[in-house]
Amino acid sequence: MTNSYSKATYRLYDDNADFNKKALGIAVGLTVGSWTELPEATKERMQQHLGQVVSVDVHEGANVASGERYANITIAYPDVNFSRDIPALLVTVFGKLSMDGKIKLIDLEPSTQFLSAFPGPKFGLQGVRNLLGVHDRPLVMSIFKSVIGHDLPTLREQFLQQALGGVDLIKDDEILFENPLTPLEKRVAACIDAAKEAERTTGQKLLYFTNLTGSTFQLKENAKRAIAAGANGLLFNVLAYGYDALAELAADPAINVPIAAHPSLAGALYPSMHHGISAPLLLGKLTRIAGADLSLFPSPYGSVVMPKEENLAVMEALLTPSLPQASAFPVPSAGIHPGLVPLIMRDFGPDVVVNAGGGVHGHPGGAAAGGRAFRQAVDAIRSGASLEQYSQTHHELQQAIELWGIRTS
Amino acid sequence: MTNSYSKATYRLYDDNADFNKKALGIAVGLTVGSWTELPEATKERMQQHLGQVVSVDVHEGANVASGERYANITIAYPDVNFSRDIPALLVTVFGKLSMDGKIKLIDLEPSTQFLSAFPGPKFGLQGVRNLLGVHDRPLVMSIFKSVIGHDLPTLREQFLQQALGGVDLIKDDEILFENPLTPLEKRVAACIDAAKEAERTTGQKLLYFTNLTGSTFQLKENAKRAIAAGANGLLFNVLAYGYDALAELAADPAINVPIAAHPSLAGALYPSMHHGISAPLLLGKLTRIAGADLSLFPSPYGSVVMPKEENLAVMEALLTPSLPQASAFPVPSAGIHPGLVPLIMRDFGPDVVVNAGGGVHGHPGGAAAGGRAFRQAVDAIRSGASLEQYSQTHHELQQAIELWGIRTS
Repeated sequence: MTNSYSKATYRLYDDNADFNKKALGIAVGLTVGSWTELPEATKERMQQHLGQVVSVDVHEGANVASGERYANITIAYPDVNFSRDIPALLVTVFGKLSMDGKIKLIDLEPSTQFLSAFPGPKFGLQGVRNLLGVHDRPLVMSIFKSVIGHDLPTLREQFLQQALGGVDLIKDDEILFENPLTPLEKRVAACIDAAKEAERTTGQKLLYFTNLTGSTFQLKENAKRAIAAGANGLLFNVLAYGYDALAELAADPAINVPIAAHPSLAGALYPSMHHGISAPLLLGKLTRIAGADLSLFPSPYGSVVMPKEENLAVMEALLTPSLPQASAFPVPSAGIHPGLVPLIMRDFGPDVVVNAGGGVHGHPGGAAAGGRAFRQAVDAIRSGASLEQYSQTHHELQQAIELWGIRTS
Repeated sequence: MTNSYSKATYRLYDDNADFNKKALGIAVGLTVGSWTELPEATKERMQQHLGQVVSVDVHEGANVASGERYANITIAYPDVNFSRDIPALLVTVFGKLSMDGKIKLIDLEPSTQFLSAFPGPKFGLQGVRNLLGVHDRPLVMSIFKSVIGHDLPTLREQFLQQALGGVDLIKDDEILFENPLTPLEKRVAACIDAAKEAERTTGQKLLYFTNLTGSTFQLKENAKRAIAAGANGLLFNVLAYGYDALAELAADPAINVPIAAHPSLAGALYPSMHHGISAPLLLGKLTRIAGADLSLFPSPYGSVVMPKEENLAVMEALLTPSLPQASAFPVPSAGIHPGLVPLIMRDFGPDVVVNAGGGVHGHPGGAAAGGRAFRQAVDAIRSGASLEQYSQTHHELQQAIELWGIRTS
């Protein structure tokens, strides 16, 4: 077996450090532990386990905007050192190191060998399009307005109203857990029944992503219960359970519905400049490798913001053909209303899910009108019309624009 | 059922925000979604699901050292809103909110009702003492010098040398995964055999914490395989798998050995002032509630540092009698040598594990001498002697002090 390496890129901040020495310390310290003092015979045997410094790129002086000296350091870790699972990869490259000063994990380039262990998204972007029979436009997703404390008939009615507007996807709120009012199987049955009712009106298919919760070792069983009750999608708080749980759910042939990964808790990890894990890795690459068919992340437009550059890097990680795993749908979320659709489609292109909660439910005509306004906004841009033009003949869009306006940048 | 609430305390940084309004927004937004516009009849029904603002403590002006205006905000979340597992609690209180500006989760006070679902550490501090028959002094733990690329006889010899020094606990490196050279069951068998060999010399008991790794849904089986092979302790990278995995391992009666939680990846979460989750919550309270019998965290002395105040708060969370779960052993780690033992015992008291890698293996007389030097340092302090005095009649301690010195602050 020839040596195969998975690479990790870090950003280290330090006013005085010898970054080359630091890089060597990481490459040795996180693999064989020590090197220079080893006997030659041992070195020969240990060579295949030794980490390698790939690059050390120092930024200092007047050209660093923040004024803080830093280096981007890439280290190659021999695959032979760790097992083919994301916990092993993360613990190897950033377990102890995460606690060692101002250091952020910027990117991972797992080897072909490592990646080959991950089937990835079971449906992926194209598979989700195939399920819906929608190939030529962004999808529209709607979120329940409120879920906690509501009974089944209320939830069903909320679902129905959203579905009647012609949205493609409806997802549970990520804070809806197993509860006596709307327990998993009854909730799925009620919502799927509402989806079928709406389908008779709209003539279009709809996926319902029910929140997969509970104890870790019951997740597979809960997923299968939801599917048996009719669920055709699952929402999953991946960071609360770890990437491996997602990877194993996605790899299970019996869990034959798309999985949408929710970014819950991600804000504890990506926003700091000096610490944590970058958003494109966290919400893009790792989420896709682990097998999410859709990945939600904070949009650059709304109430919960992420800088646009970072946002587009998340998208790039979900879509890039350079990974063997199927691409996953980017779902930029929070603060989305129909007046933002031109911007979203300009920034993300056609392969995006336009995801809204308040932008659907807050519509003056109700949730069904809200859904229609989004679909109309998408149709406007696809037809080459401006929202202003299109809204003259599309009442729901007009109402939405009156309320929220149109953002052009 | 009367209402029961679990509280979360955040620190929010914002130059201009109305923190009271922000607090109300969290209390409503993360529970019932909206409130003021609800009909009175609905309010009555929803009241039990509504979050409550407990306190808003604004810090601004000249008395804020960093110059950054912030507020500590405590919100009470109705337990009825989420299930009795840590993912549900974290997703509820910090899922979406983690992405909303400069905000750090400082503390959680889960309700008695919530806590009652967690049996906690199966052994705890006293239980680990009972297993070892050591009640009157800090324990000494040793870490393998290097593990990757070594075969079974080499690992066994490393283990034996450490054990012969009289350490109480030996743990795997957290980056040792399933591998052909030292697969789990063979590794356990070899190490436990070495432990027995050492026991015939030292006359004392020893626990070996083998690294529990692999895919999430195989963790229980892997733990049971290790135990069947003789393992009397498990090391677990809890943050790579999520707290719930630990909670379920700890709650399984068949996993009847102590579990040591490793802080791997914690540095991605706790060091930032503006984002993430505080170390005392992450490595103290949650780790203990989830059932770790020992919790490793960066010491304030060594190469990987944590401010001492934060360190002692981690210890406090592991030991405080205010939680129903058994207390867990604090294991301040990294950069520990025998000359630090007086400081450790002064800062942490007797209920601490003195944990060393380089400080054992780097001893001029080898790992066995290194272990003895630590035990001698502990005995010195207990007997009221200074390390200088004691080292005059204890050669291994003398050698250690010559090499590393004594730190007095």
